[in-house]
Formats: sequence, C-alpha cells, structure tokens
Amino acid sequence: MNLPLSADRLWQRLMEMAAIGPIPGGGNNRPALSALDGQARHLLARWGAEIGLTLTVDRLGNMALRREGRDPRRKPVLVGSHLDTQPTGGKFDGPYGVLAGLEILHALHESGTVTEAPIILVNWTSEEGCRFSPSMIGAAGAMGVLGEAEVLARPALDDGQPYGAALVATGWNGTADPAGLQDAAAYFEAHIEQGSVLESGGYDLGIVTGGFATERALVTVTGETSHAGTTPMEMRRDAVLAAAEMISAGEAILHRIAPEARMTVCRFLVDPGADGVVPGEVRFAFEYRHPSDAVLAQLLAEADAAMAGIAARRGLSVRREPYWSFAAVHFDAGLAARLRASADRHGYRHRDILSGAGHDAYHAAARMPAVMLFIPCHGGISHHPSESISRDWAEKGLRVLADAVLETAR
Amino acid sequence: MNLPLSADRLWQRLMEMAAIGPIPGGGNNRPALSALDGQARHLLARWGAEIGLTLTVDRLGNMALRREGRDPRRKPVLVGSHLDTQPTGGKFDGPYGVLAGLEILHALHESGTVTEAPIILVNWTSEEGCRFSPSMIGAAGAMGVLGEAEVLARPALDDGQPYGAALVATGWNGTADPAGLQDAAAYFEAHIEQGSVLESGGYDLGIVTGGFATERALVTVTGETSHAGTTPMEMRRDAVLAAAEMISAGEAILHRIAPEARMTVCRFLVDPGADGVVPGEVRFAFEYRHPSDAVLAQLLAEADAAMAGIAARRGLSVRREPYWSFAAVHFDAGLAARLRASADRHGYRHRDILSGAGHDAYHAAARMPAVMLFIPCHGGISHHPSESISRDWAEKGLRVLADAVLETAR
Repeated sequence: MNLPLSADRLWQRLMEMAAIGPIPGGGNNRPALSALDGQARHLLARWGAEIGLTLTVDRLGNMALRREGRDPRRKPVLVGSHLDTQPTGGKFDGPYGVLAGLEILHALHESGTVTEAPIILVNWTSEEGCRFSPSMIGAAGAMGVLGEAEVLARPALDDGQPYGAALVATGWNGTADPAGLQDAAAYFEAHIEQGSVLESGGYDLGIVTGGFATERALVTVTGETSHAGTTPMEMRRDAVLAAAEMISAGEAILHRIAPEARMTVCRFLVDPGADGVVPGEVRFAFEYRHPSDAVLAQLLAEADAAMAGIAARRGLSVRREPYWSFAAVHFDAGLAARLRASADRHGYRHRDILSGAGHDAYHAAARMPAVMLFIPCHGGISHHPSESISRDWAEKGLRVLADAVLETAR
Repeated sequence: MNLPLSADRLWQRLMEMAAIGPIPGGGNNRPALSALDGQARHLLARWGAEIGLTLTVDRLGNMALRREGRDPRRKPVLVGSHLDTQPTGGKFDGPYGVLAGLEILHALHESGTVTEAPIILVNWTSEEGCRFSPSMIGAAGAMGVLGEAEVLARPALDDGQPYGAALVATGWNGTADPAGLQDAAAYFEAHIEQGSVLESGGYDLGIVTGGFATERALVTVTGETSHAGTTPMEMRRDAVLAAAEMISAGEAILHRIAPEARMTVCRFLVDPGADGVVPGEVRFAFEYRHPSDAVLAQLLAEADAAMAGIAARRGLSVRREPYWSFAAVHFDAGLAARLRASADRHGYRHRDILSGAGHDAYHAAARMPAVMLFIPCHGGISHHPSESISRDWAEKGLRVLADAVLETAR
C-alpha cells in the first residue's frame, strides 16, 4: 500500500485540536461532555465531512465516522480513540489515535482508494474517568460491559450533571444503538505509551499484546473517634494509623510476591479530619495491577489477609469494595502480527509491550479482535501539560497503523 | 465557707444553655461567633445581670462578668471557661466551667457575701479550634500569646469570615483592652476530663497539675505524579506510600521511646487525589503530646530523622512545619493545694492528673497563677453528642471550685 499519508497534516490537526481547551504549560483541559469537548467533536465532524465520511452518533455520544467499502457483506474495521482529556492533560493522549485514524481515511479519500470492508473512525465518549467514573465509560456502554441506562444516569464528579443530561446539553445525544459498534471485524487503537519503556529502550513503536489485570477498590477502615489529647494510645482505635500500616503492608506484599506489579493509593479521606480529633474512619482507594489474573488474585488475597489482621489487632474493622476492575486483556495475535510485520517492513525498531493503563480497546477486545499500537512519549510523561511526542514517532505510528488497518479491510 | 451553692440551679442552667444549638443525640453545635454563640452569650449576660455582675466585653469578644470585692487594691480572681462547642459537641465541655463559676457568684449574691478581691467570671471566645484556628484563640489574644490584630484577621474555617467581622456580625465586638485580663491574681477553670482516667479509677475529681507539651505540624511530602498504570514501581515517587511509612515510623518511635506519649494524624490530604494518578504530594497533620518538653523534643527529633530517611530513600522531599505548639504547662502548686485540701475536707476521692487536651487555662498560666479542676465524664466521651456527666460529679466539682476561689479572693 502506498497511500499519500501526510504526517504534516496529522501534526497540524493535533495542534489545531490542542487549541481547544488549552492550559498553561502546553496542555489541554477538555473534560468529557463539556462545551470544550463539544467543540472538539464539531471539529472532528467537520474534518470527516470534508472527506465524505458519514457521521453517526449513538445514544451514548460515541461518534462513528464511516467510509464505505466495496463489499456490503463485510463487517467494518474500527479505528479510533478519544478526544476528552484529564484536567491537566496533554495534547496527544487520545487525539493521536483519533487523528491518525482520520489521516488514514483522508489519504484513502485523496487517492480514491476503496477498501473491501467499510472503515469506521470512532471517537469514544469519556475515556478519561475524571468527569464521569469509571474511565472508558462510553466504550463500556457500547460494548455491553455497562448497561446503557446505567451510563446515562452516571453523575459528573464535578457538577453532578448526569451523563445523559450532559449529552443533551452539548447536543451530542445521538439516536444510534451503541451496541451497533459491536458488529465489527476488528478494532485498532494507536496511543502514546504514557510510560518510558519505549523511549528509554530506543524503540519507535510498541506492539501492545495485552493489558494488566487491574482491581481498584475502596477500603473503609472504621475505628472510633476520640480526643487527641486525652485518650491514651492503648485506648484508641485510630483509623489513620491502621490505614497507614495497611498501605505499607500492601507495598511489602507487592515487593515480596510480584515486584513487577503496580500498587497505587490515589485517594485517602479522613473522617472527621478535624484538628484534635483521633480519626474514626478512613476510606482509601487501593489498587493493584498485574499482567496475570492469577497473580493479581494472589496479591489481593494476601493484602486482604494482612488488612484483616491489622484491623483485628487494632480493634477496628476493614472492608475492601472493588469499584474498577479488569481481567488481564489479551489482544488479537493476528492483528498484532500485522502491526509487527509492517514495522519490520519499514525498518522501525519495535517491541511487544503490555499496557498498564486502561484503554477503550480493552472493552472493544471483549467483542471483536482488537489490538493497540503504542508510540513513545518523552520521559513517559502523560496526564500532564508537558506530555510530548516527536513528529517522527507520530509518523511511524501512522504508517504502521495504516498498513494494518488497510490489510484488515482489504 | 458555707455558701448556698445550688447544684440544681447549676444543672438547670447547663440544660438551658444546651437548648441553644441542640443536635441529635443530645449534643450541641454552637460554633464560635456564630448566631448561636451570640445567643449563648446573651443568656450568660442576662444571668450575670440578674445577680448584679458588671459585664465588660473586650475587643476579642472575651466576656468578663465582674463582682466587686471589698479591697480596691486587690487584683481580681478569674474563674471561667468557654461556651462555644465542637460541631459534634456535648453539653458540658466549656459550659460546665462557666456556669460553675456563675453559680459561685450567684451564691455570693444570694448570701450577701462580699469577698476581699473582686471575682471575674470569664467566657473566653472561641476555645474550640473548629471555626477559628488555633484553639483557645480568644485566650491567646488576651494573654498576649497571639497579637490582637492577628486574631481579628483570622478567617473562619467554614465560611472564611474573619474573626473581627464575626465579632461585629454577632454584636460582640467590645471595646475593652483584652490585655486587661492579664492583671489578675489567679485563674481557675473547672472542666470535664474528656478522658476516662477519673471514672475508671473511681475518682470524683482530678486536681490538674499541668498539661502535656504538644506540637502539631503540617508535614508536606513531595514526590511526583505519574500514571498509575504505566509507571513501574521503581520509577515512582509516590507521596502516599512515603507518608504511610512515615506515619508508621512515628508510631513505632512513640512505642519505643515513650508509650505514655500521644500521637495523632488528624488530617491527610492527597494531591491530586484522582483515580489513576500516582499522588505527587501529601500534606498530613502530625502531632505528638507528652508531659515533658524534653521527651517531646526527643520524639520529634527522632520522627524528623526517620521521615528524612524515608524521603531520601524514596527520592522525595519532606518538611514538617509546626502550627500548634505548647510547652508543657505547670499549674500553680499553691492553687492546686487549695483544691486538694477542699476535696479532702469534703471527703471526695481525688487524684492529681495531667491534661492531655489544651484549655484556656494554658494561656492564663503564662500570665498568672492558674489551675484546673477536672470532673469525670462517662466513658471518657467528649466532642460527641453523648458526652455526659453525673449531677453528683457536677456538684462535687462546684463545691471544691467554690472553696478554692473564695479562699483565693478572701
């Protein structure tokens, strides 16, 4: 395939998209289903219309921009990612995958090439979990992982506006059945690595063969409030001291069983959190990630036992309630092989890699052959205004993505 | 002395005061310089006027209700406490000391007894630190521990209203010089223990010989935010994991050096506190209390060294900034002896005790001979709606307080 792919046009569009919701430091704040997200969607819709793509918006706001193929019996090939960002997001997390997909369709349009299968460019609603929890909620709704009504009712974490109301407010409440996107031949997603494995190893590309199993839970430690001045230590049931010990125990378990795992406590809320009062309750988010479902389960079992032991010794209670969990994701070996073969043909340096982060592709993989392609990002920095990539990486990712998408739609 | 003290009247007034700002469970929420605090002050002023006390309000809102003595050269004897409460306060923390003092003056009035020295009943402004930080701010301003302008500018923690503006809004912005209260012969304060040492030991009263040295600091642990999915553990500088280890280290130091000390982490704030983001910064309140200044200093030095070591090993920075500190308080031995002798005369069971909590008397002790008297409270429960005392304890405390105050004013 020798498509007239334009890395310059891709780069220009990345910059044009980044002009919507800019923040100091060169980043973006484009919360899902905000007015700024609406603007970003209109820009994508305009670019799609300019090259004859047919836009369909489903009832969860997911945008599907379709280019017909020659064979009406063939299922479409999906390629996409997301346009929403974290509050302190960069220019590339999400938009790179959407606009690389757009560039493939643009090059097909310019060259008058018609594929056998249709190709659909997808912009999933609300990938970043910062406005609507959980992350990847639009893809989860479309792929049937979450119910449509459940997604529509989910309140925004910032202003409480339900997802469905935010769709209406921004005018992106479509009428298509979100489940329609399940009936596809394949899903491709290009994304920045958001880590530094590729750059530090001198790789141009990462062929993403799967993703870490993840379980994030809310741990509630309940003791008893008392007076910080008058209560002797042996009479306290201090939730913070217990929680601190539990967190350190969780870290020790990781280092003992699986140092390659990841553990994060991203939230820690103290009740009552008042000067002079021994805290009676702590709620903290506790998360492990590991490539293997079995190892993740072992880590969690050990952590549960350790937390229960600490709570019992201190006279408190503890309960761990998962609220964001994924089994390990295994992407399609055939699609990964197509990416690998293309990278080899181009002479690009690549390696197989696992994704530590969640992506829309995880949900797509539940319904169809799916794969991801990572390009490096400088210093592994992401979810930060200084997130950056080189134009060379952007181009190499585009070329390999295009090869694999077209081979699949051939 | 055989004053017509009425424990019934004291009890009735405690209940009448508790009708201002009641909360479910039998407690009170009467924030300092709120409208409810204003109501409580008016009630106290009315009771004082009924027995001929002269009310003076100083520029920090401290109320002084004066009964003249026979000898104009004698300095006044102060007795008092506070009427403001915690958000989840009980009926007795503060009001007991104020209304026991009022009952002494009431009995003097009824019996036509004139003391040699004047007696001033004091209601200090904002003892509980929940609306204006720090605790005991009105007494601190009057005793010159904090500057008057600094106190007046202090913003409310709930709505940001400055202390001075709150005084004006409630109409309790007096004109007297707060430092006038420094020129006194003695200060007495009766208070509930807020612990369970007295009740569990079967004591009627505690003669408070001093208070714990205390240092509460804000500890800021600064690492680096990163992606919770993509960042390997060895590349993280996770502020929560470091803070958890520091807290556990502080607890271990206490148990090794001084198990009788007290340690509390009452606040713990995570930045950014977002799902999927390794926390880059944690700020937590870290406090030790110990009866000895020297031991407190040793505890803090060891904790500082441990925290610095943990931060260095993990590649983070840490700084500890004290914001609420008291040296150990040593109350006046002569005044304590008067309380002790009175309790002995009455045949009440008493013991010497140290205060773990801060009290207005701490600041008074910097300027004059001062002492405190504790009565038990059920289960040591305080800062809670179920805080309770027996009428018997209230009466015994009243009688011993009266004896010592009158002996000092004789």
